[in-house]
Amino acid sequence: MNLPDPTTQAPATHVRAASRADVTRTLPEEMAVAMVYGGSTQAVMMATPADLEDFAVGFSLTEGIVTDPAQIERLEVLAHPRGVEAQMWIADDRTDALAARRRFMAGPVGCGLCGIDSLEEAVRALPDLSGAGPVLDASQIARATDDLRGWQPLHDRTRAVHAAGFMIPGRGIVLAREDVGRHNALDKLIGAMARQGMDAGQGAFVLTSRVSVEMVQKCALAGGAVLIAVSAPTAHALRLAQGAGITLAAFARGEGFDLFSHPERLRAEVSDVA
Amino acid sequence: MNLPDPTTQAPATHVRAASRADVTRTLPEEMAVAMVYGGSTQAVMMATPADLEDFAVGFSLTEGIVTDPAQIERLEVLAHPRGVEAQMWIADDRTDALAARRRFMAGPVGCGLCGIDSLEEAVRALPDLSGAGPVLDASQIARATDDLRGWQPLHDRTRAVHAAGFMIPGRGIVLAREDVGRHNALDKLIGAMARQGMDAGQGAFVLTSRVSVEMVQKCALAGGAVLIAVSAPTAHALRLAQGAGITLAAFARGEGFDLFSHPERLRAEVSDVA
Repeated sequence: MNLPDPTTQAPATHVRAASRADVTRTLPEEMAVAMVYGGSTQAVMMATPADLEDFAVGFSLTEGIVTDPAQIERLEVLAHPRGVEAQMWIADDRTDALAARRRFMAGPVGCGLCGIDSLEEAVRALPDLSGAGPVLDASQIARATDDLRGWQPLHDRTRAVHAAGFMIPGRGIVLAREDVGRHNALDKLIGAMARQGMDAGQGAFVLTSRVSVEMVQKCALAGGAVLIAVSAPTAHALRLAQGAGITLAAFARGEGFDLFSHPERLRAEVSDVA
Repeated sequence: MNLPDPTTQAPATHVRAASRADVTRTLPEEMAVAMVYGGSTQAVMMATPADLEDFAVGFSLTEGIVTDPAQIERLEVLAHPRGVEAQMWIADDRTDALAARRRFMAGPVGCGLCGIDSLEEAVRALPDLSGAGPVLDASQIARATDDLRGWQPLHDRTRAVHAAGFMIPGRGIVLAREDVGRHNALDKLIGAMARQGMDAGQGAFVLTSRVSVEMVQKCALAGGAVLIAVSAPTAHALRLAQGAGITLAAFARGEGFDLFSHPERLRAEVSDVA
């Protein structure tokens, strides 16, 4: 493990009306990260080189390759000149899941599946989380994204990375991870939570980003019943959240939020709102 | 061609301090879009169902599958219940490029390449654009992202989609495309420009997003020598831009910008700044 610093200092010329100044900006790093199982590469993603063990565990969980971090028998993160390998060895009884997901992932790139099959496989079946998850006060939802700002040291330095946090009612944000990619940030958080034995059903995922299909998929597959985001959901993502029993609150900033699905987890008292 | 509207009206409860109101928000749609060549699916992406012919042409160009839109002999966009297929038939002499890129894309998903090979292939060689491209006034760069705001009708309705525009010095933004995905927005723009015979070397790509590795790759492969973005570049993206001879201006808002690479395309006169 000898990774570069997750940020880099870069010189720039700051140009304003009638003035120019040489400055130094802190930029986030971005590297090719390969997920390797039993010596075979499953996927390569561009990611911020930080918390890569969490990323490997979270990716394995949200891809359905393992259902418990203990099924990853060994995990080593190795830096190479041109990227990073997360080398994993998984339990024998998970090799079917690996093969199934590998077959799916090969699908879109011409393995002989017709296009329609691929389109259908692009949207995975999600667990039904109706009845799971916490009930939240409006004030807890409204302030979650503001609270997450306190857990974004990379963003403070770069103004350019996403964060995913986990909020437990009454305790606030208890864990967060950052990445240049919003999918990666959520995978890192899910991996970190699993490694600490933290149950996603007891709180809410909090995102700095928009909510696309993949974000709802990852939330559901991790067992999260509440998703709070700074920005908007896509229409497709909202349909998935509705179907999976997930409470989706978007445009969540300090002063309020839009509740799009499963309002039964919002406590009724208006007077609770901060 | 019978695509759904690219946006959907969604009911929500807007919750604020001590008040709740039922509202209707306009959300961007997001669908699985399959790129199909000669009957074989090359890739499936989640995208906004608008300008999909542009998307198909731009994807084919930035993936190196064709080098000219005329090499796509036929293009049909077909809607299915679960997604959209962009069906393309390409010139016989491009099938090698298709096979090469297919082999690469299959690489990360377990076709037998070792992880290191995959990591190396994850970053493609880029053309050298030194000496190409326009020279720009500081004021032209500074106002480009503000000007792009006038070309974002989907964003006006949804507050949730990215845009990529093309700016020609002295003419301002001349073309723009939108998508929930920033990579897709740029591919759509590149495809639209190619279909209109517009030379990317005569102006600048203008992005509402951060600048990651893939954005610089697409810009370079389309022949664009100037990239202007609202948000930050990653360090890796900056290195690629430096190496490819691309002028990269980031944090570009009306009042100024940070110039990170190849300042030779910035006209020297400070007095030109608006």
